[in-house]
Amino acid sequence: MENTTTNTDYQYRVEVCFMPGQYPVYAQDMGIVVVIDVLRATSAMVAAFDNGVDRIIPVATIEEARKYLGREGYIAAAERDGEVVEGFEYGNSPLAYIGKDLKGKTIVMTTTNGTKAINLAKDAKVLVIGSFLNLTALSEWLVQQDENILLLCSGWKDKFNLEDSVFAGAVMERLLESGKFGVEEDSSIAAKYMYMAARENFMGIIKAAPRRRRIEQLKMHADVKFCLTPDQSRAIPILRNGELVLMDTMVSA
Amino acid sequence: MENTTTNTDYQYRVEVCFMPGQYPVYAQDMGIVVVIDVLRATSAMVAAFDNGVDRIIPVATIEEARKYLGREGYIAAAERDGEVVEGFEYGNSPLAYIGKDLKGKTIVMTTTNGTKAINLAKDAKVLVIGSFLNLTALSEWLVQQDENILLLCSGWKDKFNLEDSVFAGAVMERLLESGKFGVEEDSSIAAKYMYMAARENFMGIIKAAPRRRRIEQLKMHADVKFCLTPDQSRAIPILRNGELVLMDTMVSA
Repeated sequence: MENTTTNTDYQYRVEVCFMPGQYPVYAQDMGIVVVIDVLRATSAMVAAFDNGVDRIIPVATIEEARKYLGREGYIAAAERDGEVVEGFEYGNSPLAYIGKDLKGKTIVMTTTNGTKAINLAKDAKVLVIGSFLNLTALSEWLVQQDENILLLCSGWKDKFNLEDSVFAGAVMERLLESGKFGVEEDSSIAAKYMYMAARENFMGIIKAAPRRRRIEQLKMHADVKFCLTPDQSRAIPILRNGELVLMDTMVSA
Repeated sequence: MENTTTNTDYQYRVEVCFMPGQYPVYAQDMGIVVVIDVLRATSAMVAAFDNGVDRIIPVATIEEARKYLGREGYIAAAERDGEVVEGFEYGNSPLAYIGKDLKGKTIVMTTTNGTKAINLAKDAKVLVIGSFLNLTALSEWLVQQDENILLLCSGWKDKFNLEDSVFAGAVMERLLESGKFGVEEDSSIAAKYMYMAARENFMGIIKAAPRRRRIEQLKMHADVKFCLTPDQSRAIPILRNGELVLMDTMVSA
């Protein structure tokens, strides 16, 4: 890898892509892609694995998810515009997966932003799922890998999204501390500064975002609080053959 | 206009679009678009008007600019990848326009990012040019307008760009202080936080960006310092019939 800075001697890069639409211009030379949709798809995925699901199949369309409605061993989940799609019991709320017996089940999930980002990056060498729920477990695993890492924010309908970017900044800080990773992109520097501004009063900066106020109006407060609480899980979902499964962190990816 | 917040009673919105590629999703309901390419196209444009040019015609291709090479009364300027294009005397360096007699001349300019952003937004109701050089003059004028305002960062080859976003945050803070403007987009909140992080040590945050180190290697240090020095000018370039002219701030746009 070309070492593009003069002052540091990092081995690998960790970069942030703010929006799925930019993925093609940031994906070059990246070995690991972390897909981030804090509110709420990737938080729900981590919570679901913690509650025993066997695998999650991310699909692009509601129609694909609908085929699995009522099928033995499957949970079909569909969310659009923050709401559970009509005809479905599950959307992207992580709380919906908690306290249920999901052992051995397969979730087939489609969401507005998160599963779209997964689909975009599905040909990455390694694709894993990030959320505040697994922040430390994920960061500890990432720092052990010998690959360039792209933190891919799912955004909100092709727009920049604050909580995904702040989370990317949190992961980045941990990777930069290792000395093994460095950054090259302006977006990565910006994510770090956003995280620094947010860390002291995390719920505060998130609430400062006007869209957050809309979310509160949608009475998702319990979901938001859950999704912004770090380190509730050691689960790291990883994509294998188009399906998310729980990574065995005792062996390498 | 829909008032989407409950705590404030602003009349108009001021929003930030980080990259030209996102312009279509941010442009809706926007009356004024401020095109920003701090390093260096929009800084050069402001400097050129301060040095007497009559108008600047932004063009998309090198070929269009080339037609004006050697033509009486015209200056053809072309930059790609930070360098003056072969065969041209002028690129996007603002310093090239200083100390020369440019009275009554027309500049025909094409640049990697800035003129591309202008072209994208050319059908906006009002399009003006922003840079640190005219920060106060521009902000004072904007705050008097009764329109939603979009601060459009030119970025760097479709990627997020730190100095454009920090500048957008600087303009935004001044508009928010007025109480007349509010924000709706997460990108706008993020730009404000980036500016807050950068304001104490502006050259520091810009130098922290690895690409900046490359720019220094390209020996553009004098240009960078000039472009990051606020309030050297009262000039506000405005697009009229496809040409940038100097706004007469005594009359409304």
